[in-house]
Amino acid sequence: MKNKSNLNINQFLKHISLDCVVFGFHENQLKVLLLRMKKTQEWALPGGFVQEDESMELAANRVLKVRTGLDHIFLNQFHVFSDPERSNINPAVPDVLEFGITFNDADWFNQRFISVGFYALVEFSLVQPKPDLLSDICEWISLDEIGSLMMDHRQILDKALETLRLQLVFQPIGYNLLPEKFTMPELQKLYETILGKELDRRNFQRKILAYNIISKLDEVRQGVPHKAPSLYRFNPENYQKALNEGLGGKW
Amino acid sequence: MKNKSNLNINQFLKHISLDCVVFGFHENQLKVLLLRMKKTQEWALPGGFVQEDESMELAANRVLKVRTGLDHIFLNQFHVFSDPERSNINPAVPDVLEFGITFNDADWFNQRFISVGFYALVEFSLVQPKPDLLSDICEWISLDEIGSLMMDHRQILDKALETLRLQLVFQPIGYNLLPEKFTMPELQKLYETILGKELDRRNFQRKILAYNIISKLDEVRQGVPHKAPSLYRFNPENYQKALNEGLGGKW
Repeated sequence: MKNKSNLNINQFLKHISLDCVVFGFHENQLKVLLLRMKKTQEWALPGGFVQEDESMELAANRVLKVRTGLDHIFLNQFHVFSDPERSNINPAVPDVLEFGITFNDADWFNQRFISVGFYALVEFSLVQPKPDLLSDICEWISLDEIGSLMMDHRQILDKALETLRLQLVFQPIGYNLLPEKFTMPELQKLYETILGKELDRRNFQRKILAYNIISKLDEVRQGVPHKAPSLYRFNPENYQKALNEGLGGKW
Repeated sequence: MKNKSNLNINQFLKHISLDCVVFGFHENQLKVLLLRMKKTQEWALPGGFVQEDESMELAANRVLKVRTGLDHIFLNQFHVFSDPERSNINPAVPDVLEFGITFNDADWFNQRFISVGFYALVEFSLVQPKPDLLSDICEWISLDEIGSLMMDHRQILDKALETLRLQLVFQPIGYNLLPEKFTMPELQKLYETILGKELDRRNFQRKILAYNIISKLDEVRQGVPHKAPSLYRFNPENYQKALNEGLGGKW
């Protein structure tokens, strides 16, 4: 059953790793892409190491391409996690050894790692989750069903969410998280899910329309009970402008 | 003239460095703390490496304490600089060798470094700039007088400034940059300097007062020609609240 891996640990920079918090939105729930480690059955964020000739961004894109099937995921660096105690015992090591990965320095995985956190917002429907060598499951888990994670990954997830919430105040969101056409309640639900609180329907609608980033279409959502809700679409030009310049409070 | 240094390079993590953009405001100018390298005469940001038992934050505080005399500088991580080409030729090496620093691995300084950028806003008057082993000058340079810097330090400075500008939209600023009591024109000048553009006097005053973070005092600035301008002071409670919750656009 064991395959010798052709993974050459020595191609990677020592001490430096990256972890990715990939958010998707599906059926009114914010989900995060997680892996389950084979040995410990602990859940973990997808992550990896940096090759000699890669920037952190290239490395993160490489890791996520393998994990999701997607090219050119839009990633944001959001924090560096560098507690000296965060990685001195790496629970992935049993999986590494089990899998038969060989590396010159037997303690390579057990050395101290400083990890750069990235987050990404992706279209849920386009992702084809794929476990890595050390995990048996890779799947979307709803934010409210996520408990403890491997190492400090829960802290990394929480910090990504905190960053996303802060960003919600001054930047638009939703482009990669909602389908092309969406209803106002769907957009509101996305905001509520990220913020972790309910918002007033009328205030939300007034505020989001004032930003001028969405356009109402001459269509309604078909096949729903009661009154069919209107569909909206992001206005790409204004959305991009708001991304660059910030929403509202410009000096 | 040469002193053997007791700096033990091997106490530091390989591949990881940090660079600090320290902003101060003096005589209506935004200034940045820079070092001039002895050999190359190039200007550089204060920076350093990470000890085995330090977080990035502790390392940055240690570096800045030596460079400024200040304890507990409030530092913000803002970006990781990881272009593989950024440090493959380190112009500080001649200074290192000249100074007689010895280390086991002769290429230690020439290896690839991924650098975590921090920025800090400090009280100009409290800082006692002090060069490091490799530099002969450490001083405040006005933003508009800074040209090219060592390695990618100019890019790091520009990114710090970009982050500060973005933050200006949703967070208050000025607490550590202005004296305890300041005039409205002084506060406006700080904003204008960071933003790199002039602001309308009345709009600025209306907007900043609406944030409720400054209080007008029953005092005027003495000893100035013409009409003596009123003095203001930050309201610490509201300022902290605005730091935590953001200015204006709360969802």
